[in-house]
Amino acid sequence: MAGAITLERILALQAAYIRCIDSNELEAWPDFFADRCLYVVTSAENHKAGYEGGIIYADTKGMLIDRVAALRQANVYEKQSYRHIVGLPNVTKNGGDSAESETPFMVVRIMHDGGSSIFATGVYLDTYRASGDDLKLEKRVAVCDSSRVDTLLALPL
Amino acid sequence: MAGAITLERILALQAAYIRCIDSNELEAWPDFFADRCLYVVTSAENHKAGYEGGIIYADTKGMLIDRVAALRQANVYEKQSYRHIVGLPNVTKNGGDSAESETPFMVVRIMHDGGSSIFATGVYLDTYRASGDDLKLEKRVAVCDSSRVDTLLALPL
Amino acid sequence: MAGAITLERILALQAAYIRCIDSNELEAWPDFFADRCLYVVTSAENHKAGYEGGIIYADTKGMLIDRVAALRQANVYEKQSYRHIVGLPNVTKNGGDSAESETPFMVVRIMHDGGSSIFATGVYLDTYRASGDDLKLEKRVAVCDSSRVDTLLALPL
Repeated sequence: MAGAITLERILALQAAYIRCIDSNELEAWPDFFADRCLYVVTSAENHKAGYEGGIIYADTKGMLIDRVAALRQANVYEKQSYRHIVGLPNVTKNGGDSAESETPFMVVRIMHDGGSSIFATGVYLDTYRASGDDLKLEKRVAVCDSSRVDTLLALPL
Repeated sequence: MAGAITLERILALQAAYIRCIDSNELEAWPDFFADRCLYVVTSAENHKAGYEGGIIYADTKGMLIDRVAALRQANVYEKQSYRHIVGLPNVTKNGGDSAESETPFMVVRIMHDGGSSIFATGVYLDTYRASGDDLKLEKRVAVCDSSRVDTLLALPL
Repeated sequence: MAGAITLERILALQAAYIRCIDSNELEAWPDFFADRCLYVVTSAENHKAGYEGGIIYADTKGMLIDRVAALRQANVYEKQSYRHIVGLPNVTKNGGDSAESETPFMVVRIMHDGGSSIFATGVYLDTYRASGDDLKLEKRVAVCDSSRVDTLLALPL
């Protein structure tokens, strides 16, 4: 069945998403999302407390496109270097043309002097929507373990 | 064949195991193991030297359940935050209803001030047992790269 | 079709490659490559600038074998401990008996005092060649995010 959301398709989407950001192809980033989507970056503390908002909150694809434009204008992203590593997705729901998964992530920041440090860790809470061969994120909540995440604004998670 | 241990099933178990711990759902952790099981946390140095014991040694599921109770009573786990990332499992044996794999892992510790550091790295030496659709760990030896792992007692690996 | 390069085969090769190095079974490392192969370690800066050379450059399997011999003679590798974690491969091309992928990696270095730090991060740009059930690397370019990678000479990436 073409529309079934296999683990392989989820792995492929997660890998391609990360590559898009770390290759600095940010303009392609909004296309990982469905037209009707929700993208939130928040902290574990706020998420646990049930706050719906976050450090970043976008509930239309247009807001994601605007965000890339803002990052390009601020020009901060290109001055810094990051590397995302995602772990194995844990598929918590899967039925019909929709699925959910939780995927741990880590972002390493590479300094100008060549040193590296852990920039952020957390978990992606994702909802997928399949339409034929097309798999999109309908919802991504990036829950950061640390509450010190203001500088995260420099790149998408 | 329902009982075949596919890579997909191994990926799913590894992802669910990690999620269980990092979501602080420790009471569900012993269920990843078969009733007759072995769980050991040791250092690379001791493992290489052939010592069978370890920092943690449990050879019944009941000992795992006891361990969770002790962690809850000590209440240490909840005061700290950890993030596991597992790499890709390397399946070294697979036949019938049993399989073995080696999976690298990393644990990041998130401090109260928001900073993060590498808490532990190592490799999971796992033996799986399948019973129908059910896949369990018959044996997990978590070999930590560093010999400085006493504080590991605060959470399962 | 026996020769098809499935995601599962790519995952298996990536996992086995990493295990070979971290288990210090370096003599088996050249066998992950095809007889006609290219292995390059370079920096993101140099790669972006289009420089074909690198910190390490080997265009025959014999050079890889020589490299292992040199590492063994220098005896540096065994004094240090490293742990590779690879993320999910992003398969960018796949057709017939050849495929390409980009796979993020991180290497952690474990110090003698027990502390750990990030040694290197980057991405593997790989070309695979399948011959029946046999899958080999025809080309691996390990692009390191940091330009400070001279000490990388101590182990293969």
